Amino acid sequence: MHLVAIGGSDAGISAALRARELDPSVDVTVVVADAYPNFSICGIPYYFSREVQPWQSLAHRTHADLEATGMALRLDTFATDIDVAGQRLTVRAQDGSTSDIAYDELVVGTGALPSHAGIGGLEQLGPEDGVHVIHSMGDTFALDRFLEERDPKTAIIVGAGYVGLEMAEAFTVRGLKVTQIQRGPEVLSTLDPELGGLVHTELSQHGVEVLTDTTVSSVERTGAGLAVHGTHLGEPVTRNADVVLVVVGVRPNTELLERAGARRGAGKAVVVDEAMHTGLPHIYAAGDGVTTHHRLLGLTYLPLGTTAHKQGRVAGENALGGSVRFAGSVGTQVVKVFDLVASRTGLREHEAIAAGYSPATTAAVADDHKRYYPGALPITIRITGDTTDGKLLGAQLVGRLGTETAKRVDTYATALFAGLTVEQVSDLDLSYTPPLGSPWDAVQVATQAWSRTNSGTVTPA
Amino acid sequence: MHLVAIGGSDAGISAALRARELDPSVDVTVVVADAYPNFSICGIPYYFSREVQPWQSLAHRTHADLEATGMALRLDTFATDIDVAGQRLTVRAQDGSTSDIAYDELVVGTGALPSHAGIGGLEQLGPEDGVHVIHSMGDTFALDRFLEERDPKTAIIVGAGYVGLEMAEAFTVRGLKVTQIQRGPEVLSTLDPELGGLVHTELSQHGVEVLTDTTVSSVERTGAGLAVHGTHLGEPVTRNADVVLVVVGVRPNTELLERAGARRGAGKAVVVDEAMHTGLPHIYAAGDGVTTHHRLLGLTYLPLGTTAHKQGRVAGENALGGSVRFAGSVGTQVVKVFDLVASRTGLREHEAIAAGYSPATTAAVADDHKRYYPGALPITIRITGDTTDGKLLGAQLVGRLGTETAKRVDTYATALFAGLTVEQVSDLDLSYTPPLGSPWDAVQVATQAWSRTNSGTVTPA
Repeated sequence: MHLVAIGGSDAGISAALRARELDPSVDVTVVVADAYPNFSICGIPYYFSREVQPWQSLAHRTHADLEATGMALRLDTFATDIDVAGQRLTVRAQDGSTSDIAYDELVVGTGALPSHAGIGGLEQLGPEDGVHVIHSMGDTFALDRFLEERDPKTAIIVGAGYVGLEMAEAFTVRGLKVTQIQRGPEVLSTLDPELGGLVHTELSQHGVEVLTDTTVSSVERTGAGLAVHGTHLGEPVTRNADVVLVVVGVRPNTELLERAGARRGAGKAVVVDEAMHTGLPHIYAAGDGVTTHHRLLGLTYLPLGTTAHKQGRVAGENALGGSVRFAGSVGTQVVKVFDLVASRTGLREHEAIAAGYSPATTAAVADDHKRYYPGALPITIRITGDTTDGKLLGAQLVGRLGTETAKRVDTYATALFAGLTVEQVSDLDLSYTPPLGSPWDAVQVATQAWSRTNSGTVTPA
Repeated sequence: MHLVAIGGSDAGISAALRARELDPSVDVTVVVADAYPNFSICGIPYYFSREVQPWQSLAHRTHADLEATGMALRLDTFATDIDVAGQRLTVRAQDGSTSDIAYDELVVGTGALPSHAGIGGLEQLGPEDGVHVIHSMGDTFALDRFLEERDPKTAIIVGAGYVGLEMAEAFTVRGLKVTQIQRGPEVLSTLDPELGGLVHTELSQHGVEVLTDTTVSSVERTGAGLAVHGTHLGEPVTRNADVVLVVVGVRPNTELLERAGARRGAGKAVVVDEAMHTGLPHIYAAGDGVTTHHRLLGLTYLPLGTTAHKQGRVAGENALGGSVRFAGSVGTQVVKVFDLVASRTGLREHEAIAAGYSPATTAAVADDHKRYYPGALPITIRITGDTTDGKLLGAQLVGRLGTETAKRVDTYATALFAGLTVEQVSDLDLSYTPPLGSPWDAVQVATQAWSRTNSGTVTPA
């Protein structure tokens, strides 16, 4: 039995690890396009902030750790073609030579690629010009080299999602003056603007210039460095900087599987079932390149590292004849921006409406612990629930670092997984001690506020 | 409609608040034995550590806040008798005079009383002698006065439960040399000794002398102060100190309701149904004086502030004709001891066996966040699951302050409430960002460890 996994990031490595864990007699080969298997891409901003040094620390496991599990790694090896019927994978080595790898079962974890969002000039400009993306260790080294060699003083970050915000912090910590440009009306558009606004304030207070409602049309080299052109509410706007980082999202990297005959679905990602099977014989796929089963939405596209780990694990087990299912995402996400923690799980109101729910959203502010104990800080929470059956649909939280906001969102995530109502969250037996909570935890102050506003409309099942 | 609530602590006040919230036309009177309604008894240790000053800060709500809700407070008023048929309550004022209060509905929240655990001498010795309990604001003032006037240098704390541990910290912070005496083999006996041992080490590292396996038989006054006598594994042991604090648990205060004809059940507490009804017409009861519906155990006695708040709220709503049910406890508890946070939810192995489950317990240690990001610290977690059906039965966690341990236990508490299996906890979509978590959260590293050890025995439903 020979299991081949393509991709050295979360999905591919998780599949390989799971297979070796379940059956040490199985031969496992992981084909990795670069020399950096099992690196934590989510950690890259902390390398640039210099909180994580050296870059080797970003590896979840070292090369030696991985080989000690018994898997074989084919580094700097690019998978170019799958012969589905013949169960053979064609790969190209760094020297351009190609070879075939026979497999019994294949797990594809080719991930996603950075999007350019149609911004002009990006095809022509690259790291040498000061225009960067950060999606791989190669990108990381290129940006690192640029920062060391050119010593830029100013940066423009196009995009204000998770990575964009983390990089705004990292550049600021390194002393660069940062301008962050966001197309939508508020930063961190995965949260309601009321909460994105809190993140915006945090950025401003740390000296980041934030331009919202601003669409970038092009980037060009000028004598002085780089110019970013766009429009702000119809008016032209230009900003200049020494370095430009484009972090406007990703698109699934599906080329290999498409050529092999796989179908694409939500977000143009490869369609897989809950067993992570592609429908092609002996081919599983997982991670940022495939559709995601969402417990509230059905099939969607939501590329997240946590999901890739879980899907990869499922794929690895099923490739060995297992019958496990990916239990589904509820869209839980969290980001630290300077001293603020912003998180969400489940659906926001417009997402819930689009999915056929009847949502209402209520805001509350509650202290992280009893106010009489020193250091209490407010957490702002927005609860979305279904006004028909009272089910919890989603929660968004913003609190300062140290308020346990990141793990409070997990209470809602667990409630969503279990299909609890908003009222049931208020009924949960959550922990309390004055330095760390309240008799009604902040989580429940928020659900009680929702119930006060909406309970009249709910017909309990 | 006149609702009378007896008790100025969590249960009574919660009932009164809920009634006024639901129907501002209802007359609500709260009969309070002392002058301190709605004080946070859980906060008293932080008054002694001087983190909370002045004592008035310990009020959840001020007297004025409470009256602003429209409830009437009868302070320094002791409820002596209930005329069930006549729907009248007899009360005694501070001057010894008695009077009657007519009620339509009654909620009794008389709470619990400190236990003496059969220790000799405690009936004769009191605050003036340096022997203290801390169960009320009166106790608090007495101890405060003793500390101010006598300036004790040494303290013995009999008991090493939540309050005992918090007071060991408070006394130490104030400069007293503390000896903590625990009957059982390890401190914090509500956790497995492996985890209690971590708390023990934390106490020792802060200079607290800890005597375990030591049963206190008597306390006596000596020329030099106080002597505590007991036995340690059969050998006599004596310790001397200037002040002795006895915190060995509580017993339900059921006298009033018993005389009115209420039944006693688990823990000799008054039996109530899930509507918080006592079975006596128009009489509800809630809080530390009544039995608790536990979602894994059925009816038990488990006095906790969080439960009292919830039960009081249910009682207040049902007294007004509502039909809500107390959803039940899962026994979630947390305590901060110096820089350590210890928590539990659900059942430990011996409790699960006694309740008819087939438990197994597995230990794991996992970092609170990605190790490459500065400040990662281990959390020690013990998972108890049922080997028959794979259901999660309980979790215990010990981590340092700042590891979000208090809110990580809430994920397990939510899973227990929802009846999830251990495997389903591993499937949860929990939040991740490198400074605050891991792709598999510590919560899931622990459940995966349980599954690796026990999955062979589980027959999924």
